[in-house]
Amino acid sequence: MKLYNHEAAPNPRRARIFIAEKGLEIETVNVDLMKGAQFKDDFRAVNPWCTVPALELDDGTTISEVQGIWRYLEAAHPEPPLLGVDAKDAGIVAMWENRVMLDGLQAVAEGFRNFVKGFKGHALPGPDGYEQIPELVERGRLRTENFFKMLDRRLGESEYIAGDSYTAADITAQVTVDFAGWIKMELPDELANAKRWHDTVNSRPSAKA
Amino acid sequence: MKLYNHEAAPNPRRARIFIAEKGLEIETVNVDLMKGAQFKDDFRAVNPWCTVPALELDDGTTISEVQGIWRYLEAAHPEPPLLGVDAKDAGIVAMWENRVMLDGLQAVAEGFRNFVKGFKGHALPGPDGYEQIPELVERGRLRTENFFKMLDRRLGESEYIAGDSYTAADITAQVTVDFAGWIKMELPDELANAKRWHDTVNSRPSAKA
Repeated sequence: MKLYNHEAAPNPRRARIFIAEKGLEIETVNVDLMKGAQFKDDFRAVNPWCTVPALELDDGTTISEVQGIWRYLEAAHPEPPLLGVDAKDAGIVAMWENRVMLDGLQAVAEGFRNFVKGFKGHALPGPDGYEQIPELVERGRLRTENFFKMLDRRLGESEYIAGDSYTAADITAQVTVDFAGWIKMELPDELANAKRWHDTVNSRPSAKA
Repeated sequence: MKLYNHEAAPNPRRARIFIAEKGLEIETVNVDLMKGAQFKDDFRAVNPWCTVPALELDDGTTISEVQGIWRYLEAAHPEPPLLGVDAKDAGIVAMWENRVMLDGLQAVAEGFRNFVKGFKGHALPGPDGYEQIPELVERGRLRTENFFKMLDRRLGESEYIAGDSYTAADITAQVTVDFAGWIKMELPDELANAKRWHDTVNSRPSAKA
């Protein structure tokens, strides 16, 4: 098994933290996004969507998309559970994870990719080029602000995002908060619940993965 | 159990088709999106994100987000499987479903919500208002065109989107193709693989759910 990876990018980090929490060791292969290696023919043959992470199984099958990698690894290596412990919990984790992805991760990505020169002509991930739209820089920042507040409200009622345990929803949220640093945004001090949670999750050994 | 629903909207249809494929009957409660019922206090108490679908369990727990509802129902009612039959398959279904959601459903939604007067001030779902951005109308249409082509390529190599069986990835894709009619886009005749697949999936009894 090997994980096509790029150390600095947020989505591969979601996969790496999950792998570390499972106690697995998986060989990584660097895809140099800075040099456009994801658009080269040899990587397109691995993942036609030109994105990382992608997990190549021993039988040659490639699973890309963080959700795909997580679902595979959780079913193949159930302990410790990160996608929920029973039917209801699985639903609640998926609900929170999806919402954090839409309202948080996509918000920061919008603010970042429409701003940075390196993403000119590639404001969205994938093989099809899309131009940057300057209005999305501001919208992305506003959405990130609202996401931080939502996170703080939730973490005022619950120790972790989906309940009493650390789950995949926390992984996406912690990666999002750190990714927000790339657009020079951070959790404001007054959001004490979110800051308490962020300190806790980022002190787990997996956070360095 | 009851499903907070809006008949015409694409996301509740993803939940309804899944429920029909499982052979379940779940009471629905209409949330009148045309009148802004999703923003009223009584619905916010059910789902603070102000979106449908949302599934209220008999113990009073509410699970929103299509992914959350699917995961709960699949675990509680495993047959027939719609999220994959084993670890690898679960990964592949989640990969395709996520990609179809990002590249297809979000593309059409972008073209629609930034255009239609009724979404003024609410170009994104959720409680926080965001203004429409006219450039996203064109981008949404271009992304939808590219999505149709991707779908056709995939359905030239596989009977259904994630492999030999009908899965949740097909549900999101069929709902997306029909939703594209709202921005007056349809699968072009030359995309014969995608059209063959669309006829097949839309002739399943669940398509009317």
